[in-house]
Amino acid sequence: MPTKKPLNVGMVGYGFMGRAHSNAFRQAYRFFDLPYEPVLKAVAARNTDRVKAFADTWGYQTVESDWRALVSRKDIDVIDIASPNDTHAEIAVAAAKAGKIVMCEKPLARTAAEGERMVAAVEAAGVPNMVWYNYRRAPAVMLLKQLLDEGRFGRIFHYRSVFLQDWTISKDLPQGGEGLWRLDVGVAGSGVTGDLLAHNIDTALWLNGPIAEVTAMTETFIKERKHNLTGRVEPVGIDDASAFLCRFENGSMATFEATRYARGHKALYTLEINGENASAKWDLHDLHRLQYFEHGEEGRLRGWRSIHITDSDHPYMKHWWVPGLQIGYEHTFVHQVADFLEALGANKTIGPTFRDGLSTDYVTDAVLRSARSGRWETVAANI
Amino acid sequence: MPTKKPLNVGMVGYGFMGRAHSNAFRQAYRFFDLPYEPVLKAVAARNTDRVKAFADTWGYQTVESDWRALVSRKDIDVIDIASPNDTHAEIAVAAAKAGKIVMCEKPLARTAAEGERMVAAVEAAGVPNMVWYNYRRAPAVMLLKQLLDEGRFGRIFHYRSVFLQDWTISKDLPQGGEGLWRLDVGVAGSGVTGDLLAHNIDTALWLNGPIAEVTAMTETFIKERKHNLTGRVEPVGIDDASAFLCRFENGSMATFEATRYARGHKALYTLEINGENASAKWDLHDLHRLQYFEHGEEGRLRGWRSIHITDSDHPYMKHWWVPGLQIGYEHTFVHQVADFLEALGANKTIGPTFRDGLSTDYVTDAVLRSARSGRWETVAANI
Amino acid sequence: MPTKKPLNVGMVGYGFMGRAHSNAFRQAYRFFDLPYEPVLKAVAARNTDRVKAFADTWGYQTVESDWRALVSRKDIDVIDIASPNDTHAEIAVAAAKAGKIVMCEKPLARTAAEGERMVAAVEAAGVPNMVWYNYRRAPAVMLLKQLLDEGRFGRIFHYRSVFLQDWTISKDLPQGGEGLWRLDVGVAGSGVTGDLLAHNIDTALWLNGPIAEVTAMTETFIKERKHNLTGRVEPVGIDDASAFLCRFENGSMATFEATRYARGHKALYTLEINGENASAKWDLHDLHRLQYFEHGEEGRLRGWRSIHITDSDHPYMKHWWVPGLQIGYEHTFVHQVADFLEALGANKTIGPTFRDGLSTDYVTDAVLRSARSGRWETVAANI
Amino acid sequence: MPTKKPLNVGMVGYGFMGRAHSNAFRQAYRFFDLPYEPVLKAVAARNTDRVKAFADTWGYQTVESDWRALVSRKDIDVIDIASPNDTHAEIAVAAAKAGKIVMCEKPLARTAAEGERMVAAVEAAGVPNMVWYNYRRAPAVMLLKQLLDEGRFGRIFHYRSVFLQDWTISKDLPQGGEGLWRLDVGVAGSGVTGDLLAHNIDTALWLNGPIAEVTAMTETFIKERKHNLTGRVEPVGIDDASAFLCRFENGSMATFEATRYARGHKALYTLEINGENASAKWDLHDLHRLQYFEHGEEGRLRGWRSIHITDSDHPYMKHWWVPGLQIGYEHTFVHQVADFLEALGANKTIGPTFRDGLSTDYVTDAVLRSARSGRWETVAANI
Repeated sequence: MPTKKPLNVGMVGYGFMGRAHSNAFRQAYRFFDLPYEPVLKAVAARNTDRVKAFADTWGYQTVESDWRALVSRKDIDVIDIASPNDTHAEIAVAAAKAGKIVMCEKPLARTAAEGERMVAAVEAAGVPNMVWYNYRRAPAVMLLKQLLDEGRFGRIFHYRSVFLQDWTISKDLPQGGEGLWRLDVGVAGSGVTGDLLAHNIDTALWLNGPIAEVTAMTETFIKERKHNLTGRVEPVGIDDASAFLCRFENGSMATFEATRYARGHKALYTLEINGENASAKWDLHDLHRLQYFEHGEEGRLRGWRSIHITDSDHPYMKHWWVPGLQIGYEHTFVHQVADFLEALGANKTIGPTFRDGLSTDYVTDAVLRSARSGRWETVAANI
Repeated sequence: MPTKKPLNVGMVGYGFMGRAHSNAFRQAYRFFDLPYEPVLKAVAARNTDRVKAFADTWGYQTVESDWRALVSRKDIDVIDIASPNDTHAEIAVAAAKAGKIVMCEKPLARTAAEGERMVAAVEAAGVPNMVWYNYRRAPAVMLLKQLLDEGRFGRIFHYRSVFLQDWTISKDLPQGGEGLWRLDVGVAGSGVTGDLLAHNIDTALWLNGPIAEVTAMTETFIKERKHNLTGRVEPVGIDDASAFLCRFENGSMATFEATRYARGHKALYTLEINGENASAKWDLHDLHRLQYFEHGEEGRLRGWRSIHITDSDHPYMKHWWVPGLQIGYEHTFVHQVADFLEALGANKTIGPTFRDGLSTDYVTDAVLRSARSGRWETVAANI
Repeated sequence: MPTKKPLNVGMVGYGFMGRAHSNAFRQAYRFFDLPYEPVLKAVAARNTDRVKAFADTWGYQTVESDWRALVSRKDIDVIDIASPNDTHAEIAVAAAKAGKIVMCEKPLARTAAEGERMVAAVEAAGVPNMVWYNYRRAPAVMLLKQLLDEGRFGRIFHYRSVFLQDWTISKDLPQGGEGLWRLDVGVAGSGVTGDLLAHNIDTALWLNGPIAEVTAMTETFIKERKHNLTGRVEPVGIDDASAFLCRFENGSMATFEATRYARGHKALYTLEINGENASAKWDLHDLHRLQYFEHGEEGRLRGWRSIHITDSDHPYMKHWWVPGLQIGYEHTFVHQVADFLEALGANKTIGPTFRDGLSTDYVTDAVLRSARSGRWETVAANI
Repeated sequence: MPTKKPLNVGMVGYGFMGRAHSNAFRQAYRFFDLPYEPVLKAVAARNTDRVKAFADTWGYQTVESDWRALVSRKDIDVIDIASPNDTHAEIAVAAAKAGKIVMCEKPLARTAAEGERMVAAVEAAGVPNMVWYNYRRAPAVMLLKQLLDEGRFGRIFHYRSVFLQDWTISKDLPQGGEGLWRLDVGVAGSGVTGDLLAHNIDTALWLNGPIAEVTAMTETFIKERKHNLTGRVEPVGIDDASAFLCRFENGSMATFEATRYARGHKALYTLEINGENASAKWDLHDLHRLQYFEHGEEGRLRGWRSIHITDSDHPYMKHWWVPGLQIGYEHTFVHQVADFLEALGANKTIGPTFRDGLSTDYVTDAVLRSARSGRWETVAANI
């Protein structure tokens, strides 16, 4: 593949998402025929020892202790932001100004106001940009998108989606600091609303169009936790659970719920859509299957089909193994890299862009606003 | 079994529920050792031909064309109301005044105001009474109740429940009249809120305690339908779909949804409860299974268990066949008769009573009120 | 329904099957429009107390302590044999000679030689006859039969079927006597081969045609058990587990297995058939579902459909409740009564007849013969 | 990780397995902390264009057109044989003589006689060796192995295992040549017996110990196919389907079946084991789940647990993502590389070795022998 152009990646952060993104950059051009070959050029983070170990493991050529240095380097094409939420806006704006391609882990920002600044920056700079809402690229979800776009569902009546986890039930779990910043409202911006519901919302907006208005409730089950950075027991500022009802602009109604207090579920992201002519369900715990019901079939033989998404005519799957052999979580990131690089080579834009990420922020803002007001809240239109 | 006392049943109505109740009366004392033997004494309905055919099929000894005649008969011990919702209150009040045991198909009434009159009547008369919320007596649901009562779940965080059907999607379906009165708001009182959500709510109140407040939305997807009684196209007054968020008094939060527009689902009543130490799920489409997760188990072996509810130590099951052999929908009614007659023999009260049914009416009232007001609504306390 | 003719039933036996049959006789004409109304006229068994209690529970009008008295009664139309296997032949032959309709619990006989005498008797007498292989009449199995008969599967390649139980694993379980005669080889004839595999085989012959030859193995895991009738520890003569490979006359190949030592399974009867154009699976633990795969569908949407067999266009289901509401085990017996009485009224023959039951006996004979010989054994042709 | 020693890999073949192995070599040391870093040094194959493209994609430094050149290179530590079955023995023997570590795709050889030569060669040379029976290292299967080794199952009664595919049903599919050598008996040695059943057998021997004797049947449904290398329609020499019954040395009995004619199944490798105290099931179509039943649990709460194998205390899983996020097929190969390199660094032997692979060949030989003889055949003891 002598025609592949190198694309130098500068990564910010080395946590769970830093690993997932790095693996995706490494794997994509082995399995997909892409116009660019991502080169893991540099990774930046404050903890020097950790970032060096991370660079060794993943093959980054150099390390930086300050993301600003990374952004200012001439040999970097892409800034990939995999650091906590409170750093997204500043880094993204600086990277856009420096003319870099900008990738940002979800949620785009802690608030839509932050997100608006980020969108303004990348659009002013005219740089390609992307938010890592990776679940769009689970092959089953992509297949569902195709079926919807083909008009197979007819009028949509219902959408329902949950994201259930159980990892914060213990009262002894502290908040804040490495690995636990998602419980620190200052860093995360919100609790499950921005962390989990944001995934549900991104997919829903993509599949079912804009949400018009919401009514929501949130709950913080454990009110105080020790804070790792201060060493003191402090009030918990995040929402432990969040649920909302809404109307989509297409007239369908929906229920959404996310929590970290659903015992027995680790990452049960589910979605279901009911149309006049068809319905479909998907869940992350068996991400290689799509449940599909078609009303037009012969009556006595109607049933929910469990489509095992491993055939060569399923999205992405001809690039992997042979029929019957499943892929997993990490592949959704690989697909996102592959689609992004292919679009980049063709000078096209592919979602989810920062603007798409902002659309989700508008919904999460409305959810949090409604949870406080106790009223229906209109979702702000995009800028 | 010479000690069995006959208990003369007077049935009102001969529809779907008339059949289910009649079968339950006939089967209960064959499979359970009960102090009473229900005798199908009489059935009342206005359509003489139909009621006679019904009486023949089920072995009712006599027929009446007016329920008032039935209520006034000395040889009737039990009035069982299986006629449409708009008839419940009047019949129940009259039956109570006549000193009959009163059984009433759910929902108790079209509104809590109607229900309050019914509760007042049976309590003033001191007659045993019961509402046919039969799903409490699915063996899997009863097992769940036992597990909750034993304290195995710890603090409850979440409850979620849906009832999904798809039988009214077609625009060509008329409203009103025989078999379709559930679409006629005057007769039914409401749409899915009183018909389906009432089931979800009854079980939830029983399992998880009182609901404090709700925020709700309803939707009528098809705005006009031909009315069978008038022959004219008329506005549809019922809610086709209904969803709400709520807080239980125990601090848990919940989502509820019911619809007749969820393509691919016929009677998918599901419920899930998440506690600190355990979670459980159940659904009506496989009613002989309980999904159960226990956190206390050895970590690497934790998993959702599919408990096949067919063993002799499962509720009710020793009365049926042998392990591995499932029962079905109709058995929930048989169990309700068995439990009611056993309690009657022991001079005990067993739920769901009219008062329990009224509790559900208070919640459905609040749901409909919130759907109109767009605000959180408090659930009225019981009278 | 004044046109219904009474059909007087004389039952032999009051065990598990006596109950299942009695319930079927009582229920069939309430749910199906039949030309005959079965009347529970008399039940015969040696244990006078037990048979009286049984008669009370099920509404039998009279009791007999000797089946011969029953057979000789003029007011009995049908002799239904629900007593242990070693009594089938003698009773059936006598009943046939007396001109009775004869129904016999499966297996028809302990050996094909016994079965041949029974077939000869009913055919010589020209009396209607039937074996209670009830699983043919699970609606899902009947639907599968229809689909096969319509030619939807094309050439059949494979059939596989198991019947897994776990109730005899304990060494402390005795053999013989009431409730445990299935472990007594003298009474039962064989172990799981005649008890469980016979079910698998009957359905297979019906769905996939004759079996040409088999190679088999059996195992007795617990070699000695206390015998309830002698009070002594005695050798166990039955097969605890039995498996065989075979070729059907249509060229397909198959595996069969039955056991009472498969921990975790209570009555897991499964079957699967793979044809050129379609495949299907069914199991008794969720008997209200048929798993179906059709190759002709659009490639990317192919999947196994879980058909919830509760709709009015599914076999038998319009006679029960409404879509979404499942039936259970006992209904397979009700369907068998309904089909038999309907055929009787139309002067038609309906399977499984004694001759069909004998076909299964020929296969179980060949299985046991092969297990002893260690060779492939040809299945005897029907007489 | 400066302590990692490079380990130079020389790959033979570039097909499906060449890809799977290459990916495993590339991924293992990023996710596991290993004493060696595999270096993709060279790949050998006759088709120069294809092997160059393959080398480009996967990052092999050099290519060879003859595997003999690869074996003779001083800079190669490992010869990995991913070429068709008829090449395994010659390459492996040569590689062993050259002192290379030898890895060989399964089955070890076309016959046990070939396999014996290979085992003799690696053992004479004293070189580390391994057969790519990758399914042992599905985390769910490894967990099952641990549970068995801990004695949780008690006495084993039953084992059953199938491998169902449907990719050769069409009569128009040719045999032989690139991508289709598995249908050419000269190259493959046998059909599904060596290709699919070998997987079932390897896992079974590992989990349940040696097989003593078998009785088997095979079938070739399509008797003639066009041969790609000759261009002529030629007899098909492979078995399209293969099934056998067997006794393990531990007294348990088993059924095995493999086919490429089971419509609707792509790679449905299933296994189930039933012990006195526990049972477990696994299948490749949802490889990230283990179904587990424990008898010792409270009776009414017994059920099959679906263990979602994604937690950090499940085998291998702490090296991947976070709980709830599944891995896929390719990871089984990564695990095999990781375990092999870890053992290599510790100077330990880890299975499946060539000798283990030969044990499977002895069983497949016995299966094919029995299919011809129609008799039970004893499995040869290992050399």
